[in-house]
Amino acid sequence: MIQIDGDRLNATLQELATIGATPNGGVTRLTLTDEDRAARDLLARWMTEAGLEVKVDDLGNMSGVRPGTEDLPPVYMGSHIDTVVRGGKYDGALGVMGALEVIRTLNDHGVKTRMPVGIVNWTNEEGVRFEPATLASGVIAGAFTRDYAYGLHDRTGLTFGDELERIGYKGDEANRPLPASAYLELHIEQGPVLESVGKPVGVVGGIVGITWNEVVVIGQSDHAGPSPMPLRKDALMAASGMIAQIERVALDRDDVAVATVGRIRVEPDTINTIPGKAVFSVDFRHPDGAMIEALSNELGKLGETVARNRGVEVTVERIWTSDPTPFDPAVVDAIRTGCQRLGLDYDELWSGAGHDAKHLADLVPSGMIFVRSQGGFSHAEIEESTPEDIAAGGNVLLQAALQLAG
Amino acid sequence: MIQIDGDRLNATLQELATIGATPNGGVTRLTLTDEDRAARDLLARWMTEAGLEVKVDDLGNMSGVRPGTEDLPPVYMGSHIDTVVRGGKYDGALGVMGALEVIRTLNDHGVKTRMPVGIVNWTNEEGVRFEPATLASGVIAGAFTRDYAYGLHDRTGLTFGDELERIGYKGDEANRPLPASAYLELHIEQGPVLESVGKPVGVVGGIVGITWNEVVVIGQSDHAGPSPMPLRKDALMAASGMIAQIERVALDRDDVAVATVGRIRVEPDTINTIPGKAVFSVDFRHPDGAMIEALSNELGKLGETVARNRGVEVTVERIWTSDPTPFDPAVVDAIRTGCQRLGLDYDELWSGAGHDAKHLADLVPSGMIFVRSQGGFSHAEIEESTPEDIAAGGNVLLQAALQLAG
Repeated sequence: MIQIDGDRLNATLQELATIGATPNGGVTRLTLTDEDRAARDLLARWMTEAGLEVKVDDLGNMSGVRPGTEDLPPVYMGSHIDTVVRGGKYDGALGVMGALEVIRTLNDHGVKTRMPVGIVNWTNEEGVRFEPATLASGVIAGAFTRDYAYGLHDRTGLTFGDELERIGYKGDEANRPLPASAYLELHIEQGPVLESVGKPVGVVGGIVGITWNEVVVIGQSDHAGPSPMPLRKDALMAASGMIAQIERVALDRDDVAVATVGRIRVEPDTINTIPGKAVFSVDFRHPDGAMIEALSNELGKLGETVARNRGVEVTVERIWTSDPTPFDPAVVDAIRTGCQRLGLDYDELWSGAGHDAKHLADLVPSGMIFVRSQGGFSHAEIEESTPEDIAAGGNVLLQAALQLAG
Repeated sequence: MIQIDGDRLNATLQELATIGATPNGGVTRLTLTDEDRAARDLLARWMTEAGLEVKVDDLGNMSGVRPGTEDLPPVYMGSHIDTVVRGGKYDGALGVMGALEVIRTLNDHGVKTRMPVGIVNWTNEEGVRFEPATLASGVIAGAFTRDYAYGLHDRTGLTFGDELERIGYKGDEANRPLPASAYLELHIEQGPVLESVGKPVGVVGGIVGITWNEVVVIGQSDHAGPSPMPLRKDALMAASGMIAQIERVALDRDDVAVATVGRIRVEPDTINTIPGKAVFSVDFRHPDGAMIEALSNELGKLGETVARNRGVEVTVERIWTSDPTPFDPAVVDAIRTGCQRLGLDYDELWSGAGHDAKHLADLVPSGMIFVRSQGGFSHAEIEESTPEDIAAGGNVLLQAALQLAG
C-alpha cells in the first residue's frame, strides 16, 4: 500500500505559511490580497512541477487534473488557501497541500487511476475580506450569482471583481472544475472532539444544519434604586434566565446539539438603570433538520414561559436557517475504509462549521476528512496539528481518492 | 390646623412646567440653560412676591428666608428645578414649589415661627449636562470643590462656571444657605412602592447605601459549531447563570435589598462565536451598610462558585461605594407626626436614589417626604402624581416645617 510523504507534506505546509506569516506563528492571508497572489503563484508553480496544467476560472478558482486511464469527470480534492486575520497555518491550506501531496505521491509511484484526479483551490472561503464565506464554491453551486460576487466590496471599497483582476486571477468560466465524479476535502477539525477522544482523524458524516434566531425581551427600564425586586420587569434578568435554559435545552437533547448565544446587548446599558430591553442571538446546530426544528420550538416555548413568569414581552425571530448537508454515503465509506486500511483510530463526527464541501455536495458526491486540532483552536495563530496527524490525514485522503478514482 | 392651598401648589407646578415643556407632556430643562434661567427668574419673582429676599450663592443656589421670631439658623425646605432630557414636571420642582407654597401659606395665615423658614433651589441636581449629580449641594457639603464644579464642561465644551455667569446666577459665597437648623426635601418617590401599598405619602428613613461592582468572566472564545457543549468555556453562559443568581441573592436577603445588572457586553460579540469574555456591572443597594458588605461578599462567593463549576476565570471588582445615609431621627419624627396629624396613610421607606438631602444630611438634621408616583415612573415624560397626593405632600411639608421651626 503506497503512502504519502508526510515530511514533504509538512514541509510544504510550512513553506506556504511563510506567505503572510505573522510574528506569533500564524498567517494573515486575506483573499485576493498580494499575499494571496503570492501563495497562488507558489501553488501554481508546485502544481506545474507536479505535471498539472493550472486552470483558473472566472471566480479565481485554481484547478489542475492528473489524467486517468479513462476520460471521466475527475475526483477532485481541495480546499482554500485564504485565511482570516491572524489565522493559522492549516485551516484550508491542509486540504490544498494534502491534495498536492496526493498528486505528487501518485506521480512518485507511477500510479495509474481510472478516473482523473484533480486539485482545486477555492477562492474566498473565509469571507473575512468579502462576505459571505464559501463564496466561489457557492457561485459554482448556484447559491450566489457571479455578478453578486463581483460586486462585493471590502471595507476600503475595493470590489471582488476588480481585485480578482488586479492579482491576475480572473480566468474563464470554461475553467470551472466541473463536472466532477467526487469531491474530497481534508481539513483540520477546528474543534476539540478528536483530541478529547484521542483519535488523529475523523470521518465527517456531513455538515450540520444551523439556525440563527434573534430574541428580543422587552421589560420596563427604571432607576436601579427605588424599584423593589418583585415589582421589576428587568429585561436582562429575564434574558439571563432564558440563556441559562437555552444551554440546558441543547445539553438535554443529545451529545451533538449545540446552542450558542454569541451576541447580547441591553438598553439603556447604564450601570444604575434596570434594563428595559435585551436583545440576544441564538445559534443552534445539529446534523438532523428535524432536531433543528425541535430546538427552535423549544426556544419559542422558553420565550413564552419567561414572558408569562416575568411579565415581560419576548419575541423570537428566526433570521437564517441552513439545512443539514449529509455527505454522500459512498464517499464517506471510501474515507472510512481508508482509515481502516491504514489501521488508524478514527472517529465519526459531523462538521459544526461550514466548508466549501457544503456547496460541492449539492453538485457531486462529496466528503470530508478531519485532522485533530490541538486544543481545538482555529482561526487563531495558535492553531496547530502534529506532523503525524497531518500525515495521517494525507494518507486517508490518498486512500479515499484511490478508491473513488478506481 | 392650617393647610396649604393644594390648587395653588398644583397650578404653580403646572406653570413652572411650561418652561422647557416637551410635546409629550414632559419637561427638558437642563441646568444653566436658557430654560433654567427662565425658570429661575420666575421662581425669583414668586419668592419676591412672597416677601422673600432672593439670595444667589457662588454655585447658583437660590435661597430666601422668612424671618422667625428669633434670630436662629433657618429651617430650609428645598430641592431643584433642573430636569433630565425629556423628564417630568415633578421631579425636583415639587420640592421647591412645595417650599414656596409653605411660605405662601404661612404668609396667608400670618403665622409666626420661632426659627426662620427658608426655601432653597439647588443647582444641577440631575448631573445630566454637567456630571456628577447633586453637584452644588455636594460642594456645600465638601464632597466636591468649587473649582472642580466650575471646571466641569458639557458635551459642547462649555463650563459650569461660565454658564453660571452667562445666565446671571453666579452669586456670592456669603449667600450660601448655611448655617441651617434643619433641611426638609419633598420629592416624588420615583418608584412604585407607595402605589403598590396604596399610600399617598412616604416618610423617608434615609438614602440607601450603594455599591457598584464590575464582574469580568474569562472563558474561551471558539467557533459556535465544532465545540460540543460539555467542552465549552462559554463566558456568557457562565455570566448568565451568575446574573440569575445575583437576582436570587437580593430576593433572598429581605424586602429592601436590590440588585441591578445594568450593563453587559461580551467579546467578540458575533453571532457564530462562543463568547470568550463577558463583562457586567452589579449595583447593590440597601439601607444597612453591613448588608451592602454581605451582598458584596455573596457576589464574590458566587464568582468563585461559577469559576470552579465552569472552569472559567471570574474577577469581581468593587468600583464605587456610597455609604447609607440615615436621616435625622427628630426630623423623620417631625415628618411622621405631620402625616399622623393630617390623618394621612403613610409608608416608611428609604430612598433608593440619591438626592441633595444626602449631602445636606452631612451638615444639618435632614429628612425627606415622598409623594406617590403613578406607575413609579420618573425621569420620563409620563411622570405623574395626582393633585391630591401633591397637596398631601405639601401639607406634610408644612406640618414638619412648623414643628421643626417651633
